Amino acid sequence: MKFLVVNGPNLNLLGEREPNIYGDESLQAINDEMLETARVMGHELSFFQSNNEGSIIDCLHAARLEYDGVILNAGAYTHYSYAIHDAIAAIKIPVVEVHLSNIAHREDFRRTSVIAPACAGSIAGFGKYSYMLAVSALDYIAKEKK
Amino acid sequence: MKFLVVNGPNLNLLGEREPNIYGDESLQAINDEMLETARVMGHELSFFQSNNEGSIIDCLHAARLEYDGVILNAGAYTHYSYAIHDAIAAIKIPVVEVHLSNIAHREDFRRTSVIAPACAGSIAGFGKYSYMLAVSALDYIAKEKK
Amino acid sequence: MKFLVVNGPNLNLLGEREPNIYGDESLQAINDEMLETARVMGHELSFFQSNNEGSIIDCLHAARLEYDGVILNAGAYTHYSYAIHDAIAAIKIPVVEVHLSNIAHREDFRRTSVIAPACAGSIAGFGKYSYMLAVSALDYIAKEKK
Amino acid sequence: MKFLVVNGPNLNLLGEREPNIYGDESLQAINDEMLETARVMGHELSFFQSNNEGSIIDCLHAARLEYDGVILNAGAYTHYSYAIHDAIAAIKIPVVEVHLSNIAHREDFRRTSVIAPACAGSIAGFGKYSYMLAVSALDYIAKEKK
Amino acid sequence: MKFLVVNGPNLNLLGEREPNIYGDESLQAINDEMLETARVMGHELSFFQSNNEGSIIDCLHAARLEYDGVILNAGAYTHYSYAIHDAIAAIKIPVVEVHLSNIAHREDFRRTSVIAPACAGSIAGFGKYSYMLAVSALDYIAKEKK
Amino acid sequence: MKFLVVNGPNLNLLGEREPNIYGDESLQAINDEMLETARVMGHELSFFQSNNEGSIIDCLHAARLEYDGVILNAGAYTHYSYAIHDAIAAIKIPVVEVHLSNIAHREDFRRTSVIAPACAGSIAGFGKYSYMLAVSALDYIAKEKK
Amino acid sequence: MKFLVVNGPNLNLLGEREPNIYGDESLQAINDEMLETARVMGHELSFFQSNNEGSIIDCLHAARLEYDGVILNAGAYTHYSYAIHDAIAAIKIPVVEVHLSNIAHREDFRRTSVIAPACAGSIAGFGKYSYMLAVSALDYIAKEKK
Amino acid sequence: MKFLVVNGPNLNLLGEREPNIYGDESLQAINDEMLETARVMGHELSFFQSNNEGSIIDCLHAARLEYDGVILNAGAYTHYSYAIHDAIAAIKIPVVEVHLSNIAHREDFRRTSVIAPACAGSIAGFGKYSYMLAVSALDYIAKEKK
Amino acid sequence: MKFLVVNGPNLNLLGEREPNIYGDESLQAINDEMLETARVMGHELSFFQSNNEGSIIDCLHAARLEYDGVILNAGAYTHYSYAIHDAIAAIKIPVVEVHLSNIAHREDFRRTSVIAPACAGSIAGFGKYSYMLAVSALDYIAKEKK
Amino acid sequence: MKFLVVNGPNLNLLGEREPNIYGDESLQAINDEMLETARVMGHELSFFQSNNEGSIIDCLHAARLEYDGVILNAGAYTHYSYAIHDAIAAIKIPVVEVHLSNIAHREDFRRTSVIAPACAGSIAGFGKYSYMLAVSALDYIAKEKK
Amino acid sequence: MKFLVVNGPNLNLLGEREPNIYGDESLQAINDEMLETARVMGHELSFFQSNNEGSIIDCLHAARLEYDGVILNAGAYTHYSYAIHDAIAAIKIPVVEVHLSNIAHREDFRRTSVIAPACAGSIAGFGKYSYMLAVSALDYIAKEKK
Amino acid sequence: MKFLVVNGPNLNLLGEREPNIYGDESLQAINDEMLETARVMGHELSFFQSNNEGSIIDCLHAARLEYDGVILNAGAYTHYSYAIHDAIAAIKIPVVEVHLSNIAHREDFRRTSVIAPACAGSIAGFGKYSYMLAVSALDYIAKEKK
Repeated sequence: MKFLVVNGPNLNLLGEREPNIYGDESLQAINDEMLETARVMGHELSFFQSNNEGSIIDCLHAARLEYDGVILNAGAYTHYSYAIHDAIAAIKIPVVEVHLSNIAHREDFRRTSVIAPACAGSIAGFGKYSYMLAVSALDYIAKEKK
Repeated sequence: MKFLVVNGPNLNLLGEREPNIYGDESLQAINDEMLETARVMGHELSFFQSNNEGSIIDCLHAARLEYDGVILNAGAYTHYSYAIHDAIAAIKIPVVEVHLSNIAHREDFRRTSVIAPACAGSIAGFGKYSYMLAVSALDYIAKEKK
Repeated sequence: MKFLVVNGPNLNLLGEREPNIYGDESLQAINDEMLETARVMGHELSFFQSNNEGSIIDCLHAARLEYDGVILNAGAYTHYSYAIHDAIAAIKIPVVEVHLSNIAHREDFRRTSVIAPACAGSIAGFGKYSYMLAVSALDYIAKEKK
Repeated sequence: MKFLVVNGPNLNLLGEREPNIYGDESLQAINDEMLETARVMGHELSFFQSNNEGSIIDCLHAARLEYDGVILNAGAYTHYSYAIHDAIAAIKIPVVEVHLSNIAHREDFRRTSVIAPACAGSIAGFGKYSYMLAVSALDYIAKEKK
Repeated sequence: MKFLVVNGPNLNLLGEREPNIYGDESLQAINDEMLETARVMGHELSFFQSNNEGSIIDCLHAARLEYDGVILNAGAYTHYSYAIHDAIAAIKIPVVEVHLSNIAHREDFRRTSVIAPACAGSIAGFGKYSYMLAVSALDYIAKEKK
Repeated sequence: MKFLVVNGPNLNLLGEREPNIYGDESLQAINDEMLETARVMGHELSFFQSNNEGSIIDCLHAARLEYDGVILNAGAYTHYSYAIHDAIAAIKIPVVEVHLSNIAHREDFRRTSVIAPACAGSIAGFGKYSYMLAVSALDYIAKEKK
Repeated sequence: MKFLVVNGPNLNLLGEREPNIYGDESLQAINDEMLETARVMGHELSFFQSNNEGSIIDCLHAARLEYDGVILNAGAYTHYSYAIHDAIAAIKIPVVEVHLSNIAHREDFRRTSVIAPACAGSIAGFGKYSYMLAVSALDYIAKEKK
Repeated sequence: MKFLVVNGPNLNLLGEREPNIYGDESLQAINDEMLETARVMGHELSFFQSNNEGSIIDCLHAARLEYDGVILNAGAYTHYSYAIHDAIAAIKIPVVEVHLSNIAHREDFRRTSVIAPACAGSIAGFGKYSYMLAVSALDYIAKEKK
Repeated sequence: MKFLVVNGPNLNLLGEREPNIYGDESLQAINDEMLETARVMGHELSFFQSNNEGSIIDCLHAARLEYDGVILNAGAYTHYSYAIHDAIAAIKIPVVEVHLSNIAHREDFRRTSVIAPACAGSIAGFGKYSYMLAVSALDYIAKEKK
Repeated sequence: MKFLVVNGPNLNLLGEREPNIYGDESLQAINDEMLETARVMGHELSFFQSNNEGSIIDCLHAARLEYDGVILNAGAYTHYSYAIHDAIAAIKIPVVEVHLSNIAHREDFRRTSVIAPACAGSIAGFGKYSYMLAVSALDYIAKEKK
Repeated sequence: MKFLVVNGPNLNLLGEREPNIYGDESLQAINDEMLETARVMGHELSFFQSNNEGSIIDCLHAARLEYDGVILNAGAYTHYSYAIHDAIAAIKIPVVEVHLSNIAHREDFRRTSVIAPACAGSIAGFGKYSYMLAVSALDYIAKEKK
Repeated sequence: MKFLVVNGPNLNLLGEREPNIYGDESLQAINDEMLETARVMGHELSFFQSNNEGSIIDCLHAARLEYDGVILNAGAYTHYSYAIHDAIAAIKIPVVEVHLSNIAHREDFRRTSVIAPACAGSIAGFGKYSYMLAVSALDYIAKEKK
């Protein structure tokens, strides 16, 4: 199966940005580890990163015709982008929400995910392993459907 | 007169996206029907759609010099884009807010339009006819000014 | 088709009351203009005005058997009359909510319409043209049903 | 003893209005069944229905001199009529609040009864049997007093 | 000068209703004392009482052509009747808000007067003397205008 | 039919605890009166009291296989036990919520029942008669089903 | 009788400060007019003004032994000084709250008076006449006590 | 490694309780599938279920000496049990929060997890696979520590 | 006199649990020091600890017949257990609320004690000395009564 | 050791002011009893009372160089004086917050202490004994430091 | 030009008080540096510091006749002193609000400045340089006026 | 040193847009004046303007490697763009927040800056001089570091 991994604003600085919160591995390193995780399960992954809300929406729209599922870390857009919420609701493939850090014990504004109601499920707090678990989650969803 | 029709995020998927809420006609079909409605009244229409908040603002800025009014369905940006609010307030041509569905009986976040205070008026809940009524509204405003 | 136009509290003072907000035309003048608008579309209009919440409810109940749609400007009852909300929900004919002024940029209490969730749709901010657009809206709804 | 049954806005449409919520029996049918219930207990019942807040207050005032208790379904006025609250507090006979539906699992605005603090007690959720139980409640209160 | 005294819901029961809060004098007794107070100052008074929100609005509308000022105790409507607020704003004669009790140390809902922003001024907490002071207040306003 | 009466925290102290609010009869005395009330209607009652949230949940679970309905006074758990709410929603037999006092005119925290949305209906404010009325309520529900 | 008039912060600038809101008469001029008003009724007045919360409290304490009543315009302290509230509650002589402007239609923070619950009553919105009416109010209270 | 799986209130009814939300598999079936999942990774699992908040706390305390991690579905206690929050914070082994359903698109009270800030991470919305993913999450955490 | 010391959830882990907040002495060590403090004053102490809300309520009920006062650290139940609040209100012996840490400068949820309104008084922030001070507090209360 | 006792607004009226809440002993009597309590423990006390927020801050500043601890009853300033909060945080000696009454079951505004987060600890509800316990609290803190 | 620098509560302890937040330079040192900054621009400065809200108001009043502008660090009064707000609004010279620290990332209560709406502008977060920038700001305002 | 000036949405219309609020100088004119201000201090400035949130983030990311500081007027994004907040927090160079108008006395939504907590400091209300002061602020910060 083919899954798309979408990373939102500021995740391009991963490894460099506040490493005490987000870890010191780069996004590229995480992506490589995800590829290997997916390969073992027999899935293909593509990657997309943008700091731009509109580009993330465009990307989700395009994904609906080419992929079987999306892994989405919407960064700070998680907390106010109803437009991304609507994009997830508008496409029919499952979207798994991931977060590196445990957003529940940080600033108040990070306590609410406005995109969660439209997602298949959410995984947060396991650092880079949140992404690996999301691959497994899409794998479970895919198997369930068969 | 020349009016611009601006559609915001996810409206490009109209007809495909949650048709029980948004209807099953494509944006193209609605645009065609608007063109005809406007033609009868003697007005010209142009169309713009973007999922990108910044592009919508750029478009509104440009419109102020070329058009006599704007019909705007800002999609989910309606509920949090104070930047679009400011763009509407910054230009001097009338902007009519439209919504396909009755946003008052959906999720709580859809109850508040942050752009409404800057618009000339609002029309919501009549499906594609919200757009047709908006053409009439601009027609009334245009006649009033003469 | 036969439509009923219902105006709520203080609208009988139209033209005299705060003309900078509500305009300087009397309700009678607006009604006359609506009649003409409706006549052109082939519809009949009746008119009702009351400052009394209960009378408005009685009137909506009666309308369900005699009219094909209602145009309702509930005045300040818009903002707290759950009883009118329930009356609209109880009858089966479409009710279009209208407001002369753009209620979104006035006092806070005018930002919320408790009747909107029960209405077919809402039109606000176009002065007397809100009423004319509401006639068109009912016309569209009527045509749709055929 | 003599009890008065007061029904507020939109309850005259009972049986016809949203039957999935309010049941399909008319108010008349319920009243007849209440009469029989009361008769068995040795009480007389009178009935009053109005969509008008002021008329309900007038009626409660009048009841204080003629009846030994009131059964009140204030409809949507339940949620905002502090004037009815004050009327209940002003008269000395017991008033029992009834609701057909379980108002706790409907819209948010139905969660709060502003009249409840002034009532003897409340019964909600048992359909027409809420009324029958209210007759029993007044019967208990009456016996208690002797 | 001619002033109108308007009393709202439940004030007809004055003297009988919760006398520990509202005192034990009847509305008639207070009215008589007001008449005398006004007579001394050279003013005429008329009186109106209704439990009906709509009737109070009708009465305020009519007053605008016949009286030089209004003394209004809107009872519980004080706390939610935006329709009465709008009626006061719509007429051009001064309206003085009065309350018998100190509404600031009673239930929370009595802390807010939605009609106050439209009134000339407010007097609360002096029992029947609130009314007498309101006559003086209109007297001061009248003299000021000359 | 067999009904279970479940009393929650502090109700074992009934008669001794704040008698001005809860009355001076013991829980045993109320239970005896309920038994007689039920016997007359041809029903059997069992009784359970616990101060322990978990035990109340266990008891509700067990009841689903043995009883035809439950009368539940959840005491203070009424106001925060979403776990009891879920237990009521999980079992298929009707649960009637009862309260001795009128919870609407006591402390703010008693204004909200988090279990009410899952209950068949609610009865509050009639002292021990709330329980008797609840037996009647289950009797009505039982008859309805037949 | 002897009454004390206490004016709080910024009232010393009266006549000079935002005259469109507070009028163009100086505090001295108002005091002189109050003296005359009181003299006619047979009362003596003393005056105190301070911008200092603590001094106002000291002054209220001292007043309890020397005066029969206080007229208090606490200025902005009205909206947050619970210490002044407690001082009013601690002394046994009646305190009448006055405001020059109608505080209900200004900034939100002016909508709440934290001292009102401890005052005998409140008068607001009549400009300098608020003070004259307060003298009358104390006169009424004094007569009532006899 | 040895992990403990703790299930809170009402999860013993899994498969029977609201199967449209929670699925139709019993807790036993899910536990068996978890055991197999864990066995493949080389881990041992123990299971505990209780409807009792205190017993869950006792169990978490005991776990700190015997297990290397906990998988916790606290059911409705998730939303208000600060005591369970404190228990998680008090023990030093990682606790992974799981939920069967996507709690973000259900009732409002389910939007907040008071235990999340004390957990290592959270997984929600994948039905029984939430549990399987939690086993993988503990596996990742265990490997990380080595 | 005989006093009971009741410790709630997670206090059994004292000394081990977050020692930077709660100190590094065990509950046993604190109890021993309390015993000595009480012995000097001539009082006897008993101790009870439970993680179970219901057991704490049972214990408070039992205490009302055997003890002259209670020292209660309800742990996290402090912040939501209205059932414990009601238990304290139901028994007639004085209950002193204690907390080891200054709950006012920790998480928001710890700012509110729902049990405080029912307690004789509260002591917080002095580490283990909060308990010693509570013994003195009961000693003062006891002496006062004589 | 030398401790300073600071009493805020209205506490100079103790014994005279609302004795049902604050007791009938004067501040002088309490101070004398505190002196004796402190003398027994080998400490010296000084006393300061002011109704003035600024003077209390000045006094706290001065205390930091002369005293080993402060006992502070800030009266109503407790509930809004962030300036006193900052003064406590700015000085390095321990400050113990005391209240005569149980502030948790009085008006809402008394539920929040804005100074508590900066204090060493808080004692409330034991009448004059709150002060005696505060002396003991400072004694414990002093011993701890040695 | 002549400017006045007003420092509010606790700023006299600068350098000693929480130096990690407020820096380790004394107010005197900052004042000296400001004097030099102003001298270079050709302005004279005077300085005032008080912990007393009323004295700050008195000082602002006096300044209106002697100075061309004010630099105000109101300390904690920033967050609740509507009386200082009114004093700023009452005088006609420009007042520049300064803060040493970035009040936006500290406690919640520091997020709101109630005096800001009345100030010419605000400068926060630059340590002592906030004061130097404020001198420049007044310099710009002064030049603008010419 | 090299500083970057970033202007957000609608600032390209400066001079034309609501000149009563934002002044009548164009952004180009302000930029020219800033250049001169910076040149005198020995700094270089670059300029960037975009209506696009994502482009502003991209620009801030790029700036971290090329500039010594940023002056940012984020326009309406100030009030909701947590993504820009995170971008500022992710880069290590100082960012100074500027606003032309005093955002504290305009619409409520402008009262909160979500980016402020991540900025070095904020300057608002001085019109174009806010920008000049920001250049000075970066100059101070730069000198401090040396």
